[in-house]
Amino acid sequence: MKQKVAVILSGCGVYDGAEIHESVLTLLRLDQRGAQVQCFAPNIPQMHVIDHYRGDEMDQQRNVLEESARIARGNIKDLHELHVADFDAVILPGGFGVAKNLSDFALLGARCTVQPDVLAATQAFVKAGKPVGLICIAPALAAKIFGAGVTCTIGTDHETAQAMTAMGAVHAECAVDDIVIDTQHKLVTTPAYMLAQSISQAAAGINKLVDAVLELSHTPG
Amino acid sequence: MKQKVAVILSGCGVYDGAEIHESVLTLLRLDQRGAQVQCFAPNIPQMHVIDHYRGDEMDQQRNVLEESARIARGNIKDLHELHVADFDAVILPGGFGVAKNLSDFALLGARCTVQPDVLAATQAFVKAGKPVGLICIAPALAAKIFGAGVTCTIGTDHETAQAMTAMGAVHAECAVDDIVIDTQHKLVTTPAYMLAQSISQAAAGINKLVDAVLELSHTPG
Repeated sequence: MKQKVAVILSGCGVYDGAEIHESVLTLLRLDQRGAQVQCFAPNIPQMHVIDHYRGDEMDQQRNVLEESARIARGNIKDLHELHVADFDAVILPGGFGVAKNLSDFALLGARCTVQPDVLAATQAFVKAGKPVGLICIAPALAAKIFGAGVTCTIGTDHETAQAMTAMGAVHAECAVDDIVIDTQHKLVTTPAYMLAQSISQAAAGINKLVDAVLELSHTPG
Repeated sequence: MKQKVAVILSGCGVYDGAEIHESVLTLLRLDQRGAQVQCFAPNIPQMHVIDHYRGDEMDQQRNVLEESARIARGNIKDLHELHVADFDAVILPGGFGVAKNLSDFALLGARCTVQPDVLAATQAFVKAGKPVGLICIAPALAAKIFGAGVTCTIGTDHETAQAMTAMGAVHAECAVDDIVIDTQHKLVTTPAYMLAQSISQAAAGINKLVDAVLELSHTPG
């Protein structure tokens, strides 16, 4: 039977939304492994819009669900429609959208809060004993989702790791092509573009993460 | 020595720009094969902006270079800066952006014209005897770039194939996981999302296309 995986996106573009390479690599590996995928995003305004050519903020409003739909080729649902009973696992790719739209970690660091729909959706997976995959900067939300004591990685960035530790997470350093698995919490994390110097490097870690999430979804809760 | 490949993008999103999966799969395979990649896009307004969640046109203006920069993680240059002498090959992923921004094929079909910078850049590769890869709908521009008699594929779509034939191309039907090589013109084409039902299917054809383009760039002009 096909495993069903929900992927939660945070926009479309590394500086104000979901990191596009990480999102596509996640969808690719899930499809190659025979999983059935449904993308979701919260129907909320982006924190802001960044001109990815110049790096400047633009005088524009964009919506996280509408922009995430670009990565999903239109095949996406409002996060309100995510019913945990329909899925075996959930994965959040990275990008600043996680820290700007799915939470305010980019602004408040350790004092951040997670967007309520995102928190409710991810915590429903935790409660159901279903595995969660967090990529790149997404593990910054791990302590808020799982509570104190959860082990995860964002690679080797000390400032970010320190903020995560302050929130209650246990940070484990990790190479770009590797993953950290917290078996007890069924959480898999990988640094991806927190460390990656190339798309192949990001793919190496993401492939392992997807495989581990699918593997964990077979283990009884 | 590393092969250098230029990738020309047409925005960011299948309905008004570059198809994101095809673009990322192209970058992934090029990187995995050890090629050095530089993305380019024309610095022009998009024809329009489509809400990829609902499918409606939005009352917004976006720029092809700025939006393409999202796929390239900011590492992109204005198409004016593309010097053919610096590269061994050029690849254009698909998406409606090719037919709406890089040309007006979506509006005018066989009577279309190619955006002047795009035409000049691609024809410079042809003149230099360097290979060209066109993915998905991008082969619709082949007759304009190469002249009559060039062989290529957009898969099996009869209406599009008919327009291409009217422009002087020779259309060859092709399966989703395969490519068509016109050795004389050094043109490689693959249907990708003209036919693909999944990202893995698109990847199969794109991987072959990238490999064939790199192979052709070793053959003397």
